Amino acid sequence: MISPAERFELLTDLYELTMAASYFENSMVEPATFSLFIRNYPHGRSYFVAAGLEQFLDYVANFHFSESDLAYLDRTGLFSDDFLEYLKTMRFTGSIYGLAEGEVFFVDEPILEVTAPIIEAQILETFVINTASLQSMIATKAARCVHAARGRRLVDFSLRRSQGIDAGLKVARSTYIAGFVATSNVLAGKLYGIPISGTMAHSYISSFGDEIEAFRAFARSFPKKTILLIDTYDTVAGARKAAIVGQEMAKEGHKLLGVRLDSGDMTLLSQQVRNVLDEAGLRDVEIFASSGFDEYKIARTLKEDARIDAFGVGTKMGVSADAPYFDMAYKLVQYGERPIMKLSTGKVNLAGEKQVFRKTDHQGQFLEDIIGTRNETIEAACPLLEPVMQDGKLLRKHPSLEEIRERFRKNFAALDEKYKTLDGAHLYPVKLSARLSALQETASG
Amino acid sequence: MISPAERFELLTDLYELTMAASYFENSMVEPATFSLFIRNYPHGRSYFVAAGLEQFLDYVANFHFSESDLAYLDRTGLFSDDFLEYLKTMRFTGSIYGLAEGEVFFVDEPILEVTAPIIEAQILETFVINTASLQSMIATKAARCVHAARGRRLVDFSLRRSQGIDAGLKVARSTYIAGFVATSNVLAGKLYGIPISGTMAHSYISSFGDEIEAFRAFARSFPKKTILLIDTYDTVAGARKAAIVGQEMAKEGHKLLGVRLDSGDMTLLSQQVRNVLDEAGLRDVEIFASSGFDEYKIARTLKEDARIDAFGVGTKMGVSADAPYFDMAYKLVQYGERPIMKLSTGKVNLAGEKQVFRKTDHQGQFLEDIIGTRNETIEAACPLLEPVMQDGKLLRKHPSLEEIRERFRKNFAALDEKYKTLDGAHLYPVKLSARLSALQETASG
Repeated sequence: MISPAERFELLTDLYELTMAASYFENSMVEPATFSLFIRNYPHGRSYFVAAGLEQFLDYVANFHFSESDLAYLDRTGLFSDDFLEYLKTMRFTGSIYGLAEGEVFFVDEPILEVTAPIIEAQILETFVINTASLQSMIATKAARCVHAARGRRLVDFSLRRSQGIDAGLKVARSTYIAGFVATSNVLAGKLYGIPISGTMAHSYISSFGDEIEAFRAFARSFPKKTILLIDTYDTVAGARKAAIVGQEMAKEGHKLLGVRLDSGDMTLLSQQVRNVLDEAGLRDVEIFASSGFDEYKIARTLKEDARIDAFGVGTKMGVSADAPYFDMAYKLVQYGERPIMKLSTGKVNLAGEKQVFRKTDHQGQFLEDIIGTRNETIEAACPLLEPVMQDGKLLRKHPSLEEIRERFRKNFAALDEKYKTLDGAHLYPVKLSARLSALQETASG
Repeated sequence: MISPAERFELLTDLYELTMAASYFENSMVEPATFSLFIRNYPHGRSYFVAAGLEQFLDYVANFHFSESDLAYLDRTGLFSDDFLEYLKTMRFTGSIYGLAEGEVFFVDEPILEVTAPIIEAQILETFVINTASLQSMIATKAARCVHAARGRRLVDFSLRRSQGIDAGLKVARSTYIAGFVATSNVLAGKLYGIPISGTMAHSYISSFGDEIEAFRAFARSFPKKTILLIDTYDTVAGARKAAIVGQEMAKEGHKLLGVRLDSGDMTLLSQQVRNVLDEAGLRDVEIFASSGFDEYKIARTLKEDARIDAFGVGTKMGVSADAPYFDMAYKLVQYGERPIMKLSTGKVNLAGEKQVFRKTDHQGQFLEDIIGTRNETIEAACPLLEPVMQDGKLLRKHPSLEEIRERFRKNFAALDEKYKTLDGAHLYPVKLSARLSALQETASG
């Protein structure tokens, strides 16, 4: 979502630039390492799903201030000519370790570590948190929905109430990573190749005034793609009309794909509608439901034996309504040779350059994670952070969205069911290595 | 935030396009009116603040599908050549009535009514809800914060955890409308002319290792703009060091502007820090605070006699955490000559083209609102919806952001205090006119 015409180097908190100016004037040029991690589990969460690395790496790889950015900074009167001259040619020259998109991770585990001259590393803070926290938050929320749906298909319907344009696109991408099968967001289809889905709203039915005529008109327009919205007046009566249209379509060699419920008691209505369809010989016409669903409502309706084949999941998922922000931080953990720990009340971080190691059993199921120092080796454990950028250059092509999606699928399958409950009751074990623990003792604030 | 290079006509739910195709094939060309409104008060709210009209009107005025959009739609295999040919030259040719940005409004009141051939009006649905609901939600949240702060200055610090790039910019703009004095978001400063604010993070202090040396270095770099972050190690000890630096700055003819608290007990620490500063003769050095503030925490700390002069308001405001979405809907209310009401469970809307009338007392204080039909006149009441677009052309220049901000200030002052409580206990009276009530009786579903 970053166009060449629209640059986002200034999409940053002013203090990143004032600090940078002061580092510059104080000749602070040593390499610094910053670490990106989540400080605690929000409501009900017990795991996270990584997303957003691609957007961040593209940003870093192309980082430079435009002429108009520099002219604006000059107009603020805050910055010296020397510093502005420095910004003019500044590029990112450092290294980045990152957790692949689609990986499952846990509290305190770094998902990104940036090492670069302190100005270059500092100045990325606002953007990296903005992009990674939204996408990981939504991928996590979507994973919870997918798990709750126990095999039913989920479609992202959240665009209208996602928090802005960029969020709408990132939500579509993040939900697809986590196993949603499609999105209603057409631009996400165009940009990311995600399958798109959708048929009609109530306004369509209302504009005809006659429900069955509206159904017939739609079936004529889209004989291969018809899902009829049946709750504009009375859902069960709507189902009967849909059944008639389904039978008419069958006579012409077409097939009604499904009906959609969008209001009322989803469990009861889905059962009633299933009966109507079955009695009309339309056993393979599916029931779609789309009324305020999130992981909790999906789980509840399925537990009540709702007859729903696919869910349109909208607003509450798209803004992660029960946990609409993650406490993600990007903290200085090393400057020059000095490991650094922040000590402010309630905001401690782990000093030093780190690596996350994961132990799995012989079937690949996750056993525990160990946060260690960057360069140690831990027996029978696999390092998760990969070098993705060196000397300011990307070290590899981005994986495709399908590859990321597949990585998530395998990863999530390897996480024990007990860590996937919606109340987050069981916490996956994450330890510190002996070396990392020892390093904390020597770290300064 | 809409660049010429990046078009958002496809930032829409697929069903807007499938419905449009079916309207097209069924020769449904009569004018339709859609109405944008909020269905209910989210948690604690009892008023809303309108924002987002400018972004929507710019979108509509420039609406057209690009070649690459049409090529993508063609590749989906869903649409006929005739319909794609129609989309190619489609522009918005209709009329729009809108509530000015910065106006206060209430549940059920239309803030926008779009009248156009049904395809043109339908196809705007997803975008208008996306843009107007986010901006009105944040302007409303920000107004609550401003009211709770009772005159203290508020700065938007939310960028890092706002839900994406677009949200970060819209939050900065919406909070400024509602009376925030500045933002940390540099790009919002560049694009909208909003004052920008910020000085340093903990990483700055940590990178020096010695707190007072970090303070001195910053004061050298920004002698006219220094606000020192004093909680990296121990807040009160940090305040003592800041006081020393403040005295040093005074000797050199400069002035320490303030100190910032970012963790711990805000009330107690602010009182202790105030004492430290006062005893050092630094009575005019201000105390800034920025630790998880929203309207509730602002109100609570001020009630406890916190000595805070200005608040950095971040995450919880920037995502409207206690109400992260508004139930805003865009509903068909008239097609041709036929007023239309939607009857689905719990989702009734008011049929017909409407106007919102506001009665005020002789001092301009709001008395009550009346939702009426578009063309009636209500004695001693002022119509709020203004014609903003006709035949697809904008009828006026957009007001400046400062004008919008001033409109909000006046508007909000005219709303009685009892409707501004944080628990939303008192609801402002909104009635239907006799004519609009009568119309509902005749409306069809």
